[in-house]
Amino acid sequence: MPYRAPVEDYRFIFDHVSHLDQVRATEKFAEATSDVTDAILEGAGRLCEDVIYPTLREGDLTPARLENGVVRTSPGFAEAFKELAEGGWVAVSAPEAYGGMGLPLTMTTAFNEMMAASNMALGLCTLLTQGQVEALEHHASAEIRDTYLPKLISGEWTGTMNLTEPQAGSDVGALKSKAEPNGDGSYAVTGQKIFITWGDHDFGGNVCHLVLARLPDGVAGTKGISLFMVPKYLPDADGNPGVANTLNVVSLEHKLGIHGSPTAVMQFDGAKGWLVGEPHKGMAAMFTMMNNARLGVGAQGVGVAEAAYQHALAYAQERNQMGAIINHADVRRMLLTMKAETFAARSTVMCCAVALDMASATGSAEWIARGALLTPIAKAFSTDVGIEVAEIGVQVHGGMGFIEETGAAQFSRDVRITAIYEGTNGIQAMDLVGRKMMDGGEAAFVLLDEIEAHAETARETLPKLAEPVWQAAETLREALEWLVAQKDMNTRFAGSVPFLKAFARVLGGHYHLKAAMAEGGKGARSKLARFYVQRLLPEHEALLTHAMAGADDLYDFSVEEMSA
Amino acid sequence: MPYRAPVEDYRFIFDHVSHLDQVRATEKFAEATSDVTDAILEGAGRLCEDVIYPTLREGDLTPARLENGVVRTSPGFAEAFKELAEGGWVAVSAPEAYGGMGLPLTMTTAFNEMMAASNMALGLCTLLTQGQVEALEHHASAEIRDTYLPKLISGEWTGTMNLTEPQAGSDVGALKSKAEPNGDGSYAVTGQKIFITWGDHDFGGNVCHLVLARLPDGVAGTKGISLFMVPKYLPDADGNPGVANTLNVVSLEHKLGIHGSPTAVMQFDGAKGWLVGEPHKGMAAMFTMMNNARLGVGAQGVGVAEAAYQHALAYAQERNQMGAIINHADVRRMLLTMKAETFAARSTVMCCAVALDMASATGSAEWIARGALLTPIAKAFSTDVGIEVAEIGVQVHGGMGFIEETGAAQFSRDVRITAIYEGTNGIQAMDLVGRKMMDGGEAAFVLLDEIEAHAETARETLPKLAEPVWQAAETLREALEWLVAQKDMNTRFAGSVPFLKAFARVLGGHYHLKAAMAEGGKGARSKLARFYVQRLLPEHEALLTHAMAGADDLYDFSVEEMSA
Repeated sequence: MPYRAPVEDYRFIFDHVSHLDQVRATEKFAEATSDVTDAILEGAGRLCEDVIYPTLREGDLTPARLENGVVRTSPGFAEAFKELAEGGWVAVSAPEAYGGMGLPLTMTTAFNEMMAASNMALGLCTLLTQGQVEALEHHASAEIRDTYLPKLISGEWTGTMNLTEPQAGSDVGALKSKAEPNGDGSYAVTGQKIFITWGDHDFGGNVCHLVLARLPDGVAGTKGISLFMVPKYLPDADGNPGVANTLNVVSLEHKLGIHGSPTAVMQFDGAKGWLVGEPHKGMAAMFTMMNNARLGVGAQGVGVAEAAYQHALAYAQERNQMGAIINHADVRRMLLTMKAETFAARSTVMCCAVALDMASATGSAEWIARGALLTPIAKAFSTDVGIEVAEIGVQVHGGMGFIEETGAAQFSRDVRITAIYEGTNGIQAMDLVGRKMMDGGEAAFVLLDEIEAHAETARETLPKLAEPVWQAAETLREALEWLVAQKDMNTRFAGSVPFLKAFARVLGGHYHLKAAMAEGGKGARSKLARFYVQRLLPEHEALLTHAMAGADDLYDFSVEEMSA
Repeated sequence: MPYRAPVEDYRFIFDHVSHLDQVRATEKFAEATSDVTDAILEGAGRLCEDVIYPTLREGDLTPARLENGVVRTSPGFAEAFKELAEGGWVAVSAPEAYGGMGLPLTMTTAFNEMMAASNMALGLCTLLTQGQVEALEHHASAEIRDTYLPKLISGEWTGTMNLTEPQAGSDVGALKSKAEPNGDGSYAVTGQKIFITWGDHDFGGNVCHLVLARLPDGVAGTKGISLFMVPKYLPDADGNPGVANTLNVVSLEHKLGIHGSPTAVMQFDGAKGWLVGEPHKGMAAMFTMMNNARLGVGAQGVGVAEAAYQHALAYAQERNQMGAIINHADVRRMLLTMKAETFAARSTVMCCAVALDMASATGSAEWIARGALLTPIAKAFSTDVGIEVAEIGVQVHGGMGFIEETGAAQFSRDVRITAIYEGTNGIQAMDLVGRKMMDGGEAAFVLLDEIEAHAETARETLPKLAEPVWQAAETLREALEWLVAQKDMNTRFAGSVPFLKAFARVLGGHYHLKAAMAEGGKGARSKLARFYVQRLLPEHEALLTHAMAGADDLYDFSVEEMSA
């Protein structure tokens, strides 16, 4: 069955939930009129429906493979990527000065969602390249920017991020890769990196590696790490790929999903690289890349959820077991759960994108704080939703869901990684209750004020929806007050994952209520809001009980007791 | 890392939670002394640790395949199955008259759990054979029993169940396979069956198919279906495999998991078969097989959960990221969730097994009702737990969880089918709120009385644990009263899945409380009970709100609205 890009849903969310008009009203994004954003949505939708989605299954069946040191990508990927690049889709938010369209991150996010829905494995190639563009734009020298940005933005070249080493995963500061000055302004980078997404390919052009490594005078831990641009081919005098650098792909991983995405072990042997940003400030530069990547990963969760929903809905209409199974109550419950969760996740991601756009357009501290607050929620909640919805999709298919040819299982396998990479969802939750609460919870309280104010306005028209949302926000507020009063960080961390989930449940209620209000309480979105508020929103209470359970009981167990 | 059979946990549950002493006190199972059951647990544990578990990974890497019409099983499977069969492990509950050990179903259930933990794909071969033994024992003629039972019980031959056809899955009554009398007491069976687990293999001996088909005078629907024994090789005069029957494997499925289990499309072309049970009463006979299979599938969920937990726990001790990750609060929360859920699921399965043992030993209506009530909960909850725990196991592994070599992903892929086969978990939930409530909820109310009475006793010693369990039982009681008052079945079905989950949450609280009481509130089991009661039990409230939401909102959506 085909994939249908949810263009109408984006439009609705832009108009009534995330309020893209605020972004359009800024000077920076004045050109992002609704005519322009419509054209982008429709063009990206067509590309994903007609060019990208047809490559999905083949990428699963014929994974990228390493042949004599060269990565061979899945059949059809090179052609699809070429068409995508030629359409100018790699980085629509990149600066116009370097050939981008300068559009809001919101539009990139919609594109990333549709890419993930149609082929998440291939979508990673654009996602990583976007991140690299962002990092170079903000931290690289003019020379590096001029050499790399136009080619990355046009998709002639692609980008990677090289953080992880076998002993340094979530603990990036433990990395051992080294960079020694060559004396000519360049550096010799040496080390092994693992889990390098799209570490190599056969699309032509160049593969540009951003590599974290330690200079000779770099201290231990994250404060001694610097960032380097280490291209596969050294650019010649004209900026074209020249001699091969001393780096290579050691092996590709065998993964649960996204088989079409080559995940490489990379070896750098004194490979030539150039410093990006200040010495020892590599983590800051990398964070630029990682933050937007987190939102991009959240969008992946939404995209796969959308595709899995469309797939399951079509099957439920075709499959007859005592009538079409779509008419069975439990199948409806499953399908509507998928739909309601996908809307909540998409709204969360889009509100985060708007906050980041407003932050970059206005520099306002409030918008910066809002974007920072929403990023871990958008990443963790939306990828949890992607996994949950794809799982339900398998279940709707019954026995056929377990058969690979059906495609339902692939969604479930592909999306599983989104809860792990770019910081596991546990790390996101720690970020939320730790770093993002260093303001004493202010950004979160401001958001709760907004949610409650909106619910109060809505109370007159839609009391049965507005009241539970207001109550849920109030319960969350009490939990938040408890949370920020905890000075022992482990007490916060012990309940951080359920806290994040509860926060997302409340946000979902807020967004569904907004959708219902936009319809005056009449229509399919209002029905879906009632479904969400009645059946899913109540989960926040038990989650908050769990969130406030403290850490003592967790540490009361010895390892022997856990092993018994 | 090796698998360690949880022998001590079974012993504890037998003594303090499921009360196996009741079973031992019956005449039928008087020989199942604790010396005997200990020896069985230890022997089965050694077999699974030393012989079965080493075949797990190879079964995933080298799936069963069809070569010129013959199924070739995964490397090592034939040898492992031979050792298992020679040890007398295929059907320890089978009648002694036919070579079995006549032990309680509880012991078979423990064996099945350990088999699933060590190699679920291979364990299915014994599980299906056990089911066939049970069906033949109760429904087949003396001639069929004498010919087949000894060889099935010894593992020389294996059994399958052939229900599903492309158009007839959950709706078994839609099947089209036919059986025509040959005039000599045998029948010619013709039709195609799909999803036939262990439909063929290269272990030698015979493959005995129990096939549902319609006699010429069979009416449409389930009331016109009869059951036939259709062996791969027709037994000769001495009862040994003789000429090949006219049946064959058309193809094997490519599945998400359990790659080592050959899932066949079977074609029967006038294959010779013999009626099992009465004409047109095939469903009743098949239900005998399916009911115990449901418990067996529940045990699979527990087994994979146990294995995934052991795997994740070992990894969390080895992996250092800012200290061993087992010392991070969120990792502890994940591991303890796995452990607490596994205990709750194992206890549910074991209490169901004891109820079925008491029912078969005493014929008591109360025990029959208890077993019938617990079967869908044991099946659905324990397989949900298997999936959830395996998922958390992947997450504990971080990036390594997504790499197939780690093994965490295989647990997740293998166990996924358990929520689907032997009746999807949605079907189990419909069974619980429909058929199992035809007594007006009496069996459920009796169980709630027991739970509350126990909590009242426990209140004095362990008030902080006993009170929430009592309250949860009371909340469940109110929901149950609401449920049985609903005459429109769709109103029940609309919330059946969350209702079953809530019921299981309360049962889990009851079992954890029993464990804590057995320790006098001091020790690791009491700590785990506190973890469960504080962090997981509260979920029952939102689940019951969801369970009582009714069906109206689900049917308020047109298909167009769901597709928008």
